[in-house]
Amino acid sequence: MAVVVSELTENVAGEHAQLVIPITLFVAVLCLCIVIGHLLQENQWVNESITAIFIGSITGTVILILSKWKSSHILTFNEELFFIYLLPPIIFNAGFQVKKKQFFHNFLTIMLFGVVGVFISSLIITSGSWWLFPRLKFHGLTARDYLVLGTIFSATDTVCTLQVLHQDETPLLYSLVFGEGVVNDATTVVLFNAIQKIDVTKLNSKAGLRLIVDFLYLFSTSTALGVTAGLLTAYALKTLYFGRHASIREIALMVLMAYLSYMLAELFELSGILTVFFCGIVMSHYAWHNVTDSSRITTRYLFAMMSFVAETFIFLYVGMDALDIEKWRISKLSFGTSVAIYATIILLMSLGRAAFVFPLSALSNYMNRRADRTYKITFRHQVIIWWAGLMRGAVSIALAFKQYTFSGVTMDPTDAVMITNTIIVVLFSTVVFGFLTKPLISYLLPNSAPNNLSREESKILKEDMNLPLLSFEESATTNILRAKDSLSMLIERPVYTIHYYWRRFDDAYMRPIFGGPISSSSSR
Amino acid sequence: MAVVVSELTENVAGEHAQLVIPITLFVAVLCLCIVIGHLLQENQWVNESITAIFIGSITGTVILILSKWKSSHILTFNEELFFIYLLPPIIFNAGFQVKKKQFFHNFLTIMLFGVVGVFISSLIITSGSWWLFPRLKFHGLTARDYLVLGTIFSATDTVCTLQVLHQDETPLLYSLVFGEGVVNDATTVVLFNAIQKIDVTKLNSKAGLRLIVDFLYLFSTSTALGVTAGLLTAYALKTLYFGRHASIREIALMVLMAYLSYMLAELFELSGILTVFFCGIVMSHYAWHNVTDSSRITTRYLFAMMSFVAETFIFLYVGMDALDIEKWRISKLSFGTSVAIYATIILLMSLGRAAFVFPLSALSNYMNRRADRTYKITFRHQVIIWWAGLMRGAVSIALAFKQYTFSGVTMDPTDAVMITNTIIVVLFSTVVFGFLTKPLISYLLPNSAPNNLSREESKILKEDMNLPLLSFEESATTNILRAKDSLSMLIERPVYTIHYYWRRFDDAYMRPIFGGPISSSSSR
Repeated sequence: MAVVVSELTENVAGEHAQLVIPITLFVAVLCLCIVIGHLLQENQWVNESITAIFIGSITGTVILILSKWKSSHILTFNEELFFIYLLPPIIFNAGFQVKKKQFFHNFLTIMLFGVVGVFISSLIITSGSWWLFPRLKFHGLTARDYLVLGTIFSATDTVCTLQVLHQDETPLLYSLVFGEGVVNDATTVVLFNAIQKIDVTKLNSKAGLRLIVDFLYLFSTSTALGVTAGLLTAYALKTLYFGRHASIREIALMVLMAYLSYMLAELFELSGILTVFFCGIVMSHYAWHNVTDSSRITTRYLFAMMSFVAETFIFLYVGMDALDIEKWRISKLSFGTSVAIYATIILLMSLGRAAFVFPLSALSNYMNRRADRTYKITFRHQVIIWWAGLMRGAVSIALAFKQYTFSGVTMDPTDAVMITNTIIVVLFSTVVFGFLTKPLISYLLPNSAPNNLSREESKILKEDMNLPLLSFEESATTNILRAKDSLSMLIERPVYTIHYYWRRFDDAYMRPIFGGPISSSSSR
Repeated sequence: MAVVVSELTENVAGEHAQLVIPITLFVAVLCLCIVIGHLLQENQWVNESITAIFIGSITGTVILILSKWKSSHILTFNEELFFIYLLPPIIFNAGFQVKKKQFFHNFLTIMLFGVVGVFISSLIITSGSWWLFPRLKFHGLTARDYLVLGTIFSATDTVCTLQVLHQDETPLLYSLVFGEGVVNDATTVVLFNAIQKIDVTKLNSKAGLRLIVDFLYLFSTSTALGVTAGLLTAYALKTLYFGRHASIREIALMVLMAYLSYMLAELFELSGILTVFFCGIVMSHYAWHNVTDSSRITTRYLFAMMSFVAETFIFLYVGMDALDIEKWRISKLSFGTSVAIYATIILLMSLGRAAFVFPLSALSNYMNRRADRTYKITFRHQVIIWWAGLMRGAVSIALAFKQYTFSGVTMDPTDAVMITNTIIVVLFSTVVFGFLTKPLISYLLPNSAPNNLSREESKILKEDMNLPLLSFEESATTNILRAKDSLSMLIERPVYTIHYYWRRFDDAYMRPIFGGPISSSSSR
């Protein structure tokens, strides 16, 4: 009896330790990352992602040595952890802190890059690898695998991009690259799910059309869900008047409603990313104005902090996972073939991105030909957009794990190759492209002064949350003057006209119901 | 092939949904609780725990009906979830927001209640149930079970108590009951773990001594770990000077270090509760002064919010779990016997608490006989302390699940009885005692004006964080005058003298190193 009890106790203690040890380790390393990231902040070459990846790999190596070359990672990569806990705060914060003015002004260009771009890029990567992989003596992938491959390596890394570009130095670039990243996230996840469903044996134009309809359906329903959740929160905060004495309830309600919108989207198999992004935009536009000053400060920093910790955690994890020797052991390719595959993927990625950035930029410039020069995408900008979007990150890894492993474990050599491929490409693109982006920007755009503020801080300090959702001073007067011949205007400058009417609608109907300061005519 | 893939996809989707559905449901119900709790805030009878429990039981009933009387709960109670995620923020926030002045002044009394009290109470409950249960025809419990039973029902519910008492209305009562709750938490967990280890067949004075030594060791090491973690954070924040532009890093570091201290304590099998409580005290005393204004506001509200959500979640869960009909089915006792057992436990609980509150209060009054009248515990106070501490909560449930189930599931009738016993006692004590506490206080202490501020808010608004750790104006002048004959003072008024020297030490050595305003002589 005593023996049974002690065994049971040990068993329970063992289970307990199974969770306690990795959490302790991760939290400790996260603290280390924050301190070291702070010390290296002034450094021109490294950014926080690279720091986290390096610290991750060092930790991985230490664990590998301590466990006598058996296991380099403590937690197996869990896409649930990623999709349910880490991604929502990052994307919500992005929506909450984004410069709405820039984002909506460039909306059409962003949609071109984020939707059409992904389709072009996936097509090139899929067909390129389909043609090249057998020539590199790498066989065993199915048609679906190739399609998935194109999607995985078309997912840009929003998180890493944000650490290189600054909203205040290069507002146009930032909004384009960042906006693309968000829409891209949604498109790749939608595409990935669509590929799981379609019958690969019947790839025809009908299937392609089906894909586009699916995408449009998902995009609109996800956005609607996010907007509804945001408006509901704003309405609840305004009518219940939580007021001076209930900051904690207000904050809790905002956090929980944001998360609820994401989980509902996941439940209905929509794109949680899009939902929570638009929920963030609506919340910062309406709900944020209905709460106390303390709640405003707290929510801004809280969301930024959660996003920051989640980002750091992901890169730390990627670094630690890189040394997972089991997967290296299972993949049976020679060193030469492996390197050739990595090089092929990176080459196809660059080609695929070039194939849409330059033509679509030209198209966007053509559409905006009558607008201000500020919104013209110069060739130098195009190069930076192309380059900054080459980084691949956590979404790629999460999708790869979802496709090629079962709960983070794989025994199939081909699958193991795909996992290691993804990890290497992510590591290479983050570290090498990440290293070179800052110098590239200062070379191509010498005017943009280096900013000593940390990224999140500057984002928060500078953005004026009181601006209406779509205000842009430079065009407002013109709009009012031209309002009478609005039909000709709608044809010539569609974005401006839509904005003008949206703002009138916002001031007349939305803000009185959902909160937020009503912009007076003079301040427009 | 296609079938296999679609099956796999379905399987993955099923797994995904297994996590998504309960999370979505819990988050949605949490939102509901916040809104309803806000609407009922002015109500004299209900408090937030009761609201959450009711909403939880209604949700449980709905699920029960929807699942056709099969399962009332979606998540099985997971003590990992409780101990690793929900408890740390509650206790840390308690340490962070506690009125340090009151807490340290009543330190000896609190320790008497929290340590000696638990031993007395457990002893009475254990021996009482040992004697009464067989007479109620309830057999099958081992000696260890009886010992554990005493511990489980000696764990007061800090969370619920806080919702009834207010720091500003009844400062002495609040600090005593709350302080007792924190120390009580630590003592019961320590005692519970100690009981798992001791050999129940050899219960003698040596085993008792061993238990006390174990407790002292755990208490001192846990406290030291928490203080070290807090000081380390303060030192890092001060020397690295994160400064104006890195609020997000500061906040992240404070949150992560607090959590790290808890997890380290769990890893070394210390009392995480004590550790994180003292970490909170040290952080609010030193680290909090080294950060920017935005970080200060954010951390205060963030910690309070996390604690609030965790509390609500726990009560919601208790409410939902109450209807777990499986456990009711397994326990084979008649209705009469069950009620007799509940009544016995509640009676023993009340007796056990009375057996230490009144004698120890008298002892405390005797020790403080020369101090101010403000610190005298009147008989009315004693009644309230006795009554408010009768509520049992999440710690009891967590310990019961840890002892009597295996990962939340039990098949043994006796174990099932113990689980349902605990749930019923917790529900009864929270609802009934909770309902009556507010009226009782206003009857016994009619002077304490009802406070319209919500609990957390008033806690934050009123407390002046700039006060030194142990300042109490009323005694400061006296202290300085008497400093010369400090030996006689140490004998007469030990607490005051220790405080005086501590404050000198704090100003001279601690604050210059770890941060915080140095109190000038005039302000003492």
